[in-house]
Amino acid sequence: MEFWVNRDCFYKAISDVSRAVSAKTSIPILTGIQIIATEEKLTLVGSNSDIFIESNIPMTINNEKILDIFEPGSVIISAKYLIEIVKKLPNDVHVKMNGRQLVTIKSDDIITTLNGFQADDYPKLPRIDEDASVRLSNTELKELINQTTFAVSKNENKPVLTGVYLSFQEKQLTLAATNSHRLAIRKLFIEAYLDGACIVPGTSLNELSKLMQDESGHIHIYITESYITFKSVNMTLYSRLIEGNYPNVLGLLPKDAKTVITIKTSQLLKGIDRASLFAYEGKNNRINIEIEDGSKMRISSNSSEVGKIEELQNIKEINGQRDLNIAFDGRFLMDALKAIKEEEIQLSFGGSMRPVLIEPIGNPNYLHLISPVRTY
Amino acid sequence: MEFWVNRDCFYKAISDVSRAVSAKTSIPILTGIQIIATEEKLTLVGSNSDIFIESNIPMTINNEKILDIFEPGSVIISAKYLIEIVKKLPNDVHVKMNGRQLVTIKSDDIITTLNGFQADDYPKLPRIDEDASVRLSNTELKELINQTTFAVSKNENKPVLTGVYLSFQEKQLTLAATNSHRLAIRKLFIEAYLDGACIVPGTSLNELSKLMQDESGHIHIYITESYITFKSVNMTLYSRLIEGNYPNVLGLLPKDAKTVITIKTSQLLKGIDRASLFAYEGKNNRINIEIEDGSKMRISSNSSEVGKIEELQNIKEINGQRDLNIAFDGRFLMDALKAIKEEEIQLSFGGSMRPVLIEPIGNPNYLHLISPVRTY
Repeated sequence: MEFWVNRDCFYKAISDVSRAVSAKTSIPILTGIQIIATEEKLTLVGSNSDIFIESNIPMTINNEKILDIFEPGSVIISAKYLIEIVKKLPNDVHVKMNGRQLVTIKSDDIITTLNGFQADDYPKLPRIDEDASVRLSNTELKELINQTTFAVSKNENKPVLTGVYLSFQEKQLTLAATNSHRLAIRKLFIEAYLDGACIVPGTSLNELSKLMQDESGHIHIYITESYITFKSVNMTLYSRLIEGNYPNVLGLLPKDAKTVITIKTSQLLKGIDRASLFAYEGKNNRINIEIEDGSKMRISSNSSEVGKIEELQNIKEINGQRDLNIAFDGRFLMDALKAIKEEEIQLSFGGSMRPVLIEPIGNPNYLHLISPVRTY
Repeated sequence: MEFWVNRDCFYKAISDVSRAVSAKTSIPILTGIQIIATEEKLTLVGSNSDIFIESNIPMTINNEKILDIFEPGSVIISAKYLIEIVKKLPNDVHVKMNGRQLVTIKSDDIITTLNGFQADDYPKLPRIDEDASVRLSNTELKELINQTTFAVSKNENKPVLTGVYLSFQEKQLTLAATNSHRLAIRKLFIEAYLDGACIVPGTSLNELSKLMQDESGHIHIYITESYITFKSVNMTLYSRLIEGNYPNVLGLLPKDAKTVITIKTSQLLKGIDRASLFAYEGKNNRINIEIEDGSKMRISSNSSEVGKIEELQNIKEINGQRDLNIAFDGRFLMDALKAIKEEEIQLSFGGSMRPVLIEPIGNPNYLHLISPVRTY
């Protein structure tokens, strides 16, 4: 194996695939990045065996030559060292492997030699079923992920809740995430005739969202029995699916409300953020919400040792019963409010022991449901 | 105590004095900030009993009213909560204390109440001897600190080496810092007739440097038996001195050299940085330096398990013996090179077992001495 490659393209690809590589692994070969040089392109793969990230470097970008393959081949090199070396190289990189997995990386007068691993031992990439696919814009997919994934459970005792539920039905894609105290649901109309559902680890979707940070364009989604694949022009992420049955979260949504309030999203977020100051002292980050004089919302928290904070906020509109006294985990409220882009939200309360439904005004495709914490 | 204050000025002062407050302290009152309101100004003090930082807020800045005192008084409030609250307040702040150290902080419709400590229990500020002072520009003082303090020892076994030695002699201020493997010395001509020396904790000087980040203007230095004080217009830092005798570091400087090399500072820094990649694997971060063909410098490091890196750098000028093979701790070389602003440096080697003297070309007031590490 021998090739020459543009330093910046090589570094970007190494950084991207390194995201899948775990520093703490009992399988030494998974600390490495697989490099495959063929006649047409250079492929890099990183994996922790649950996620695979593949990045391809073509021969040219915008008619500019960025890669030259002198001899095809493949090798595994330590991700940690490869990324550190290439980051500090001043210029284009020449990589050559001799017979015994000894890899020489040369740039100007700087020569580095690294011991590689045998490429045959690296895990194989999952297969893609090209027939069943959905096409989304990167922007849409990022928004779907960022508006739901934060709500998954961190607790491994119920594995299905650590994942996001993806369901394709009647031209509609639905993402749902819950930790059994809060629920986020986001829908999107899609142009694909595909039926089915799967549970994708929240960690995989977070990695995907970071990988797509600067990317525009489109992404294709493929689902097989045990893997979901997200494929853009030069980057592919494969994630293992979580097995099990996801709870029927749509059945949880309340049908009626006692008190319905319209309020400004950012104003409420700032108030909850301030009130969280003392909430963190106790359990559950308890924030109290009360209706005062039928037209104001009082947000407060207190810690008997340190002090208390309270503020009054204007309500834009209120319908139904005007007496309300309820407490929530402030973090759950803030996560939900941060994920909403719309200026105003509607809060539907069913009483002090029932969850609140949060819906952005003017967007019927997104909602949050948050359970109260007990006030005694 | 009751006052009104501009939010931004109050937040800046709280942030500044909080630097001296340690979260981990067995003395509860030291987790607080002392607030003193007099007829003329508001004074905030934070301390960990080794350092005191004092910040003053005047009644006006540029003829704009930023403070109004309704009732003088003083109180101690938890630094952690005060900083978090004021950071999140939207507008000017009204602070009022009732009889029992209960402090109310009000901004718009937001009311916070905090339990304070009794102000009498707070440690007293050290006294300043106004007679003996030196005046420096903030820029100069920051440079002096940043060019020496990194070289102090982290090891508490020899307390004097955790401090920077400040000596005032014959219109010259000298700062020296060493961990017994490397030494940094910086001199400055000053306009003060002051004789004496003291050892200032490196941590105090680092705090001072951060405090002065955005400040221009001048600073006055006062020294008493057990404290050094740095005083600018609205900010004062008092630091306890380290007792003991500082080693005679000037006596360590070598008088002659076998090989003298002139080389570009940033080029050498980048080379050492790259070579450090494998140096971190072993002990002492060992970087090897050799003269090759009498005109090039070979910089290398290796790790038997992972690999090796080497590069050849051009030397601008070389005098004396042309055979050299020496090894250093790469971090010490990098720290020294980063602190040098001049484009070129002169390296004076006395042989492979003797320390190297590093001097910036064109600046006789700054030098580094770094001991080699053994190559076997």
